[in-house]
Amino acid sequence: MTARGETFLAEIREQPQALLRLVEQAPAYEEAAQAAIERDPHIVRLVGHGSSDNAASYGVYAFGLEPGWTALRDSISLSVYYGAEIDLERSIVVALSQSGRTPDVVAYVERARERGALTIGVTNEPKSELAGAADLTLPLAAGPERAVAASKTYVSQLAALLLLAGAIAGRTSATVDQISGAAEAMAEALPGFEDAVAPVASAFAYVGRMFVIGRGIEFATAREIALKLTETCRVAAEPLTSTDLAHGPIAALDPLFPVWTIASRDEALPTIVEAAQRARAAGATLVASGNAHSEIDGAAYRLPAPAAPSPLLSPLLSVVPGQLFAAALASAKGLDSDHPVGLTKVTLAR
Amino acid sequence: MTARGETFLAEIREQPQALLRLVEQAPAYEEAAQAAIERDPHIVRLVGHGSSDNAASYGVYAFGLEPGWTALRDSISLSVYYGAEIDLERSIVVALSQSGRTPDVVAYVERARERGALTIGVTNEPKSELAGAADLTLPLAAGPERAVAASKTYVSQLAALLLLAGAIAGRTSATVDQISGAAEAMAEALPGFEDAVAPVASAFAYVGRMFVIGRGIEFATAREIALKLTETCRVAAEPLTSTDLAHGPIAALDPLFPVWTIASRDEALPTIVEAAQRARAAGATLVASGNAHSEIDGAAYRLPAPAAPSPLLSPLLSVVPGQLFAAALASAKGLDSDHPVGLTKVTLAR
Repeated sequence: MTARGETFLAEIREQPQALLRLVEQAPAYEEAAQAAIERDPHIVRLVGHGSSDNAASYGVYAFGLEPGWTALRDSISLSVYYGAEIDLERSIVVALSQSGRTPDVVAYVERARERGALTIGVTNEPKSELAGAADLTLPLAAGPERAVAASKTYVSQLAALLLLAGAIAGRTSATVDQISGAAEAMAEALPGFEDAVAPVASAFAYVGRMFVIGRGIEFATAREIALKLTETCRVAAEPLTSTDLAHGPIAALDPLFPVWTIASRDEALPTIVEAAQRARAAGATLVASGNAHSEIDGAAYRLPAPAAPSPLLSPLLSVVPGQLFAAALASAKGLDSDHPVGLTKVTLAR
Repeated sequence: MTARGETFLAEIREQPQALLRLVEQAPAYEEAAQAAIERDPHIVRLVGHGSSDNAASYGVYAFGLEPGWTALRDSISLSVYYGAEIDLERSIVVALSQSGRTPDVVAYVERARERGALTIGVTNEPKSELAGAADLTLPLAAGPERAVAASKTYVSQLAALLLLAGAIAGRTSATVDQISGAAEAMAEALPGFEDAVAPVASAFAYVGRMFVIGRGIEFATAREIALKLTETCRVAAEPLTSTDLAHGPIAALDPLFPVWTIASRDEALPTIVEAAQRARAAGATLVASGNAHSEIDGAAYRLPAPAAPSPLLSPLLSVVPGQLFAAALASAKGLDSDHPVGLTKVTLAR
């Protein structure tokens, strides 16, 4: 019997090892990459729910920037519920599900395969329904995840998408090295992260709503941190791009409505710096995170991330302070982050 | 000088006339449809920010269900900031901007056109920068919109996307009839909508956070109602699909965290009914809206919409009670919905 929240915390701490187990699977990823290249696809269709859908947001950038392929988070309802008659002969489907049991993700894959797509399941359970439904299965190899809120399987999904995209671009070995490098940087940074989040969590014990701002490669991180805060801390945390913030939501801000910014060193950074200035001018309390947090002026709190081997590796590192902050805030609020109310590990809802 | 919030309200009331002005532009939409068909595209890339991006969510279904084409809300940052080298020869770009001045939408169009895409600007300002940058311009013809929060231009963008998708599918005249029918139904329903929202707004005067649930064709409506509530009422309102809710956010609900459900009669309705049951079991106060609101059990408030000529027309009608509710709630909170704090009509932020 573990203490409340200890499972979630243990799995966050285990992420570097999970990443190293993933890169051992590189031959399977290389094989899937060859099958994908042979298909000469027009499009990569990413599907998943919850944290898996957040990882899919990252996949858009991994495929767009590594092989230069168009990837999208496809609508599951368009095909599964509405039965849209879309040609899928030149499509690759990458379906993400930790458990491999998400019903409409499996239904989507079955339908897409019938319609001629090459279907690849990325799962932590290589004997699951998803694995049975897809043409090819790529293991996450993250080890069993027991806390209801995903942590290591999310980070391993990011790495899996990057490894597949890198393999398609002919850079398997360089990508393996980069993921291993990120795992090492994460392992070194983890104790410092844990110390850093504690005082911020105490200060946020009564916060009821937040915005989490990221852009481009880091929008997935904004989505995932917002989801952790919502499910484990019962905070209404909404992920927004820097531009989304300016197109309306900025009007809702005040000093009791904090804004978490993910500032990583890449070409979208200036938009995050501008968004942070705008949020500060609206009176919001700022949290600056990411490896370029020092570019954010006037932040009340800072949760730095280490430098990444390249911008596409940043999200593997920048999400970790957010996960740890969620664990610490849940504890400060007296909540059990291992077992959020009303949730179960495998979500069978449509 | 008009009273606070009167401009926003007047523009909501003007929506049926705006729709009728739009359908008068059908020949221009038909011409763009022919150019699109000649391109034999693999993909339709939708771009926009704020309400325009919400309309783009609807475009995914309009193109997916009318001509059976894959449409996606493309990442602007991937091409404009990161310079991804993606082949666009077989792409159609549909860029949405009320003002035609959104800087990175214009930058996206310029770049996509250089890379060989057929670019179509949909705008309320046919002499704008966007119109200058795109191969073809389709007018919204909604008339000047002066309230900061979009209303009639959003509904006209939905109709514009449907008209273009319908024209591509060879159904221009049927689509014109359906939009005109929806305009008529809206005009008839408007006075009743205004009476219905007032008591709900009074009850919600102290609400600080909400979820707005829609799925598939109606997810755009959920996004747009959430945005209206956030920008005009300073409520942290987050749009979620029925499945998103189950994958974590359900854990945050309690009786002071209401859930607005959009229940329209289409194949995704059972997922909304399930999500509402789940939210109610978590103790949330439910608002049931849409033309199938009667399928939602145990709603504390009901804001019905009239039946639509077909499921793809529902979003034109189901958003209106949400717009009017936002106007009434802003008024109940003592806020000026014409001029939300910190916003201007044309957003030049990146």
